[in-house]
Amino acid sequence: MMLRIEDMDRKQHFRMAYSETGTEWRIEKDPVIFDHDEELQEYNGFYYDPRITYVAEEQTYYINFAVHSDLLGVRGGQVKTKDFKRFEWIGFGTEPDCRNCVLFPEKINGLYARLDRPHGKDGTKNNIWISYSPDLVYWGKSKVVATTRPHHWDDAYVGPGAVPIKTKEGWLEIYHGVYRSCSGAIYRLGVLLLDMKDPSCVIGRCNGYVLGPRELYERVGDVPNVVFTSGAVAEDDGTVNLFYGAADTVMCLATAQLGDLLAACREAR
Amino acid sequence: MMLRIEDMDRKQHFRMAYSETGTEWRIEKDPVIFDHDEELQEYNGFYYDPRITYVAEEQTYYINFAVHSDLLGVRGGQVKTKDFKRFEWIGFGTEPDCRNCVLFPEKINGLYARLDRPHGKDGTKNNIWISYSPDLVYWGKSKVVATTRPHHWDDAYVGPGAVPIKTKEGWLEIYHGVYRSCSGAIYRLGVLLLDMKDPSCVIGRCNGYVLGPRELYERVGDVPNVVFTSGAVAEDDGTVNLFYGAADTVMCLATAQLGDLLAACREAR
Amino acid sequence: MMLRIEDMDRKQHFRMAYSETGTEWRIEKDPVIFDHDEELQEYNGFYYDPRITYVAEEQTYYINFAVHSDLLGVRGGQVKTKDFKRFEWIGFGTEPDCRNCVLFPEKINGLYARLDRPHGKDGTKNNIWISYSPDLVYWGKSKVVATTRPHHWDDAYVGPGAVPIKTKEGWLEIYHGVYRSCSGAIYRLGVLLLDMKDPSCVIGRCNGYVLGPRELYERVGDVPNVVFTSGAVAEDDGTVNLFYGAADTVMCLATAQLGDLLAACREAR
Amino acid sequence: MMLRIEDMDRKQHFRMAYSETGTEWRIEKDPVIFDHDEELQEYNGFYYDPRITYVAEEQTYYINFAVHSDLLGVRGGQVKTKDFKRFEWIGFGTEPDCRNCVLFPEKINGLYARLDRPHGKDGTKNNIWISYSPDLVYWGKSKVVATTRPHHWDDAYVGPGAVPIKTKEGWLEIYHGVYRSCSGAIYRLGVLLLDMKDPSCVIGRCNGYVLGPRELYERVGDVPNVVFTSGAVAEDDGTVNLFYGAADTVMCLATAQLGDLLAACREAR
Amino acid sequence: MMLRIEDMDRKQHFRMAYSETGTEWRIEKDPVIFDHDEELQEYNGFYYDPRITYVAEEQTYYINFAVHSDLLGVRGGQVKTKDFKRFEWIGFGTEPDCRNCVLFPEKINGLYARLDRPHGKDGTKNNIWISYSPDLVYWGKSKVVATTRPHHWDDAYVGPGAVPIKTKEGWLEIYHGVYRSCSGAIYRLGVLLLDMKDPSCVIGRCNGYVLGPRELYERVGDVPNVVFTSGAVAEDDGTVNLFYGAADTVMCLATAQLGDLLAACREAR
Amino acid sequence: MMLRIEDMDRKQHFRMAYSETGTEWRIEKDPVIFDHDEELQEYNGFYYDPRITYVAEEQTYYINFAVHSDLLGVRGGQVKTKDFKRFEWIGFGTEPDCRNCVLFPEKINGLYARLDRPHGKDGTKNNIWISYSPDLVYWGKSKVVATTRPHHWDDAYVGPGAVPIKTKEGWLEIYHGVYRSCSGAIYRLGVLLLDMKDPSCVIGRCNGYVLGPRELYERVGDVPNVVFTSGAVAEDDGTVNLFYGAADTVMCLATAQLGDLLAACREAR
Repeated sequence: MMLRIEDMDRKQHFRMAYSETGTEWRIEKDPVIFDHDEELQEYNGFYYDPRITYVAEEQTYYINFAVHSDLLGVRGGQVKTKDFKRFEWIGFGTEPDCRNCVLFPEKINGLYARLDRPHGKDGTKNNIWISYSPDLVYWGKSKVVATTRPHHWDDAYVGPGAVPIKTKEGWLEIYHGVYRSCSGAIYRLGVLLLDMKDPSCVIGRCNGYVLGPRELYERVGDVPNVVFTSGAVAEDDGTVNLFYGAADTVMCLATAQLGDLLAACREAR
Repeated sequence: MMLRIEDMDRKQHFRMAYSETGTEWRIEKDPVIFDHDEELQEYNGFYYDPRITYVAEEQTYYINFAVHSDLLGVRGGQVKTKDFKRFEWIGFGTEPDCRNCVLFPEKINGLYARLDRPHGKDGTKNNIWISYSPDLVYWGKSKVVATTRPHHWDDAYVGPGAVPIKTKEGWLEIYHGVYRSCSGAIYRLGVLLLDMKDPSCVIGRCNGYVLGPRELYERVGDVPNVVFTSGAVAEDDGTVNLFYGAADTVMCLATAQLGDLLAACREAR
Repeated sequence: MMLRIEDMDRKQHFRMAYSETGTEWRIEKDPVIFDHDEELQEYNGFYYDPRITYVAEEQTYYINFAVHSDLLGVRGGQVKTKDFKRFEWIGFGTEPDCRNCVLFPEKINGLYARLDRPHGKDGTKNNIWISYSPDLVYWGKSKVVATTRPHHWDDAYVGPGAVPIKTKEGWLEIYHGVYRSCSGAIYRLGVLLLDMKDPSCVIGRCNGYVLGPRELYERVGDVPNVVFTSGAVAEDDGTVNLFYGAADTVMCLATAQLGDLLAACREAR
Repeated sequence: MMLRIEDMDRKQHFRMAYSETGTEWRIEKDPVIFDHDEELQEYNGFYYDPRITYVAEEQTYYINFAVHSDLLGVRGGQVKTKDFKRFEWIGFGTEPDCRNCVLFPEKINGLYARLDRPHGKDGTKNNIWISYSPDLVYWGKSKVVATTRPHHWDDAYVGPGAVPIKTKEGWLEIYHGVYRSCSGAIYRLGVLLLDMKDPSCVIGRCNGYVLGPRELYERVGDVPNVVFTSGAVAEDDGTVNLFYGAADTVMCLATAQLGDLLAACREAR
Repeated sequence: MMLRIEDMDRKQHFRMAYSETGTEWRIEKDPVIFDHDEELQEYNGFYYDPRITYVAEEQTYYINFAVHSDLLGVRGGQVKTKDFKRFEWIGFGTEPDCRNCVLFPEKINGLYARLDRPHGKDGTKNNIWISYSPDLVYWGKSKVVATTRPHHWDDAYVGPGAVPIKTKEGWLEIYHGVYRSCSGAIYRLGVLLLDMKDPSCVIGRCNGYVLGPRELYERVGDVPNVVFTSGAVAEDDGTVNLFYGAADTVMCLATAQLGDLLAACREAR
Repeated sequence: MMLRIEDMDRKQHFRMAYSETGTEWRIEKDPVIFDHDEELQEYNGFYYDPRITYVAEEQTYYINFAVHSDLLGVRGGQVKTKDFKRFEWIGFGTEPDCRNCVLFPEKINGLYARLDRPHGKDGTKNNIWISYSPDLVYWGKSKVVATTRPHHWDDAYVGPGAVPIKTKEGWLEIYHGVYRSCSGAIYRLGVLLLDMKDPSCVIGRCNGYVLGPRELYERVGDVPNVVFTSGAVAEDDGTVNLFYGAADTVMCLATAQLGDLLAACREAR
């Protein structure tokens, strides 16, 4: 089950899409409606990159996405649903410019926790941060989690990707890293392991990337050389199903073993 | 009484400066020390542009300032003091990039309120925003307050300046606006009138600026054509003493009548 | 029958190319010569993007093309021919910077009419304009016809493409629109319907594009993700043969039904 | 007698200003109104830099000025008056981007003639051009007149300034030239001598500039180091009164002898 | 036999690779070590683009490569070996920014000679130069050899590629030329013929390129549309084996006849 | 005695200027001529910033200056004279882009030594370097001497200024440092103390600057906020006469005590 962006009337809306297999999808014709989203309408933007976090304790799905306004900048929007039929607008979670907000599936030390990427004026400051909130309304205690690495595949930007996966070793975060060549950006995916109790603390990080553009459909498309994820699902058998966009043109499904991703986090760096 | 930036050992610290007159100042030799500021030290930046808000209800002075880190961006730092002898670090109030944080002198609807200027990646989004907090730790309910005005003296940037002054008509905010010419920026000061109960609502705004570079010491210096304020004091007789930096080189004192500033807010725009 | 650019001695000349089928072409070895083009030689540039308009009333083909000079900018050049053997230079039709000039196949209200794209200093002003002339020498009454659409496939540039096709509903113009991604531009084609009597008035415009890069030869080449047209021929049976360049590397032929293109113009936007 | 820009309600209008002396001015309170300027209103811009040409043969004053629109670019606007009480809108004379339009005071070879500066996308193409018109509506036969000179005081931009002055030796044109330093632009004034019969032909050009920023009021102001003219009046005794703006802050009057300006045009370059 | 870059522990090292065929390669696991390279270690950079010159007279292989430091810029590094087992650091051959250093296989007029590309601050100055040295330590008598050609395939950059090949007609140099489109750079290869006695003198130069991106593996990859060479070997039978990187992703082998390359140098330009 | 740049016929030449006092100067009308400078003429540039070094051992004055070519970049030129009547061209001392070359007044370890500033493509690499030469023809053993200091007055550029002054403590070098504000660059002067035997080794460096723009003639002029030196003379009594340009508009003379400059080098940084 997955949300999908649709271009309609020049304002992008989310729609529901359903799949038994993860590769065949049925997309609903009508866009999703958020209850009580006057504040969002006022902001007058379009939105994209939804990340869905299931908080089991509350039996509720939280959806974080980016809301763009030409005049006012990009902020994090928040909605919740219990049944993917009714969605309720919670409110913005950030000032601009901030995007790639991803909520943890559990409270940590009694607080909601969120990874995000504040987007400073100066292109050298594109790091992954964490913030906490007692109520999803007021956020604070922000701290940097992971920075870009010079001359590496993630040297221009890093941003949170999938919802963190709880493992015995800590929170596994699949993130994207960007390298700028003289002919455009290359978006790839890597893995971070964050401390279970203090997820601002990185206890493992891959050296190389775990998924980079290689297939023709990842290399060639509207935006060449991009793989980008907003969602991954860990199965009970240790398989991680990674849904990712390729070349900003097609949606793909990759699979990995959780053990291999954790091993990558133990690489020496 | 005013804090002052001093360049010392390549890391800027604040120092106390005292004056009976507002024009003659005695500057302390030793920098101010913040208690419990490990988090600030870690951030490894330098800081500037302090704004001091006296919250009468708590008999406490809150100081908001910008903390700059090359790697991590500019954030809002917060300290408090009761006697200007001991200062306590409260914590950061924002993610990067955000500066020009100014705390209101009263809680509004039971919440602390702050004006600031988030500093988006794209230069067209340099507006004044407001955020609220129950405790100065978690902030939210952010909303844009005032935007730049095309082809006007404040068409490139606007940012909060002095601590808002409570008047019968609402909160009077002295802000800076920036215009970009082909030979550099011009920083000038204008006034906003904000609704007493809902300060995100602008109920008056000057058409022209109230103070712009005109004197030689405002026109000529390290950064020509700049007037910039971090503090203004309203006297009981209706005089507003505006302390401002000129050409990033000298500190100046200007005076105005509160009534005139309020009248400027009623200009038709 | 089509003109073609050839790189020769570092100065580009047009050559004739002939085809029975529209897909197999025989290209002449010798470049085309323009009579009386001293003015053009003096301008010291190279030229490209020819658009051929047949004005039936005069039994004459007019060719509009872009003439580039590093020192002086890009202007519209005009030649005419009756037989594609002798070509006569008419003169420049614009000051710099202007390109994508396309002449209407009929006079409108007694005046020649031309679509073009003036190319302002500031990248935000890349719109389709119309100008009129009594004699192809003096041009005026210029007006904007269609602007770029924010966050849409044509949000960075729009420019005239093929010679307008006269239909019962108005002038059908196939134009190009450009979107800028973080890895380069995407050129696509859309349709406009212009009022028969006042072609500065848009009476229909497609919402989506009618041709975008999708095939490998459109995606991959010297300039990836480009489809660009300088010519389309409407057959009597309603078929429109669209000749277009792909990836700045190959020439292609696409076909459409005039009715479908007109329907696209009726989309709600 | 001179027109003046006034900032009012964020839309700039011209006002009449009167002077006996050329240094003391009385400015009218009400802005000038143009009859039949619906086309101008529609363009939705603001305007500046008026140049007034008296065409004696028609006992009419023609005023050329720049009209700026954020969305559509800068174009040349034209109005005429016989008494400076009623002004009639003639129409735009150019597509965007073009500014600094200056009409010659006589028809040349039966055509109106105009100097201007088309403003190409690429900053290296900022030259003075000439265009002709039979009726002020349709313009053509455009040609470059004078280009920038590398490593000279006029190496970044050149643009027409005052209305050309008819002399026995040819048309004397006072123009501005721009040099870019690492701290902003320097605007200075030079002289060109154009052939009487074919004013696209330069028969003399100063080597150095004839007026550059030197006085404090020319060096220091909103835009430092600028002298810029839109008007000069040649008296019968050979005195040229040059009205010019300094530092985009004050209006000034300089005087020169026509003979000296002509001599400057004979400098070897 | 060829050196190869390997990314390892974020610092790139060279490794030996062996091949019988030129297309199948066995790469050594351990990186090459340079003796006495304290100076290089201190420079704290990474290195790439090795060019191997065999100086028969000395029975020694000299390897020139680029050494990059973020803080200090890119310089030319030099090592030598007789057996590809022990390598000795010679020293830097340039100040920054300079890259693409290629040593001639013979002394010329008693001096070592080197082609390189100094990399000036301004992007318009990316030409091929030559320098001389009595001892590989002190270099001088630098002269430009070949410049970029406007509006040609080599109009943005030119740089030395393979080690010059001695022919009866002069030194044959395979170089790269770069063209910038609106969607990134295109790297192609051309040929220069340099005078045998005075190799700063170009006696022949191809008009078109001899190898450009055409195959899918040259068009598509981490950096699309790149062919780039650091080495070519002329066989006794007149075959030139050209090793080149494609799309910054794969290594390729192309073959040409020396006679054809020399003929290309005789093209009229 | 000092050389001076004069603009004449758009090609800048040096002229002799004489003074008894250091403040009153008599400038020769005719430019200086260099013997055997065909190579320089060919380079087709203009030159500026001469630094004169007297090598007592050879009773010869060496003059290093920058030679600029739009096409080929900025290089260091070298001439010598014994009497300031006849000047002999020695040759270029660098490839482009390099400027601010300053020769030491003595050989060091048997080699000529030179400070300079290679000018890399990327603006972050603007440091002071040293090179050595046995003969002024071949240069090598280049090493960085001093880098820019972040957030300090010399954080954007540093370059050699005056000829190093031999003191008991080492070589005293007066250098310029540049800071970029939002309204242009600020050029100031500082001091370095270099090891007598190994001048690549910095043994002292000022914390603050020793001369910065403060007077109106340093603040205001063609390029505001610039002080820049190409020459300083140490008198026997310990006075240092510093000749410097202010605001790129006037030449000035400042004096300091050698002891004070050395003390500044001992500041803690």
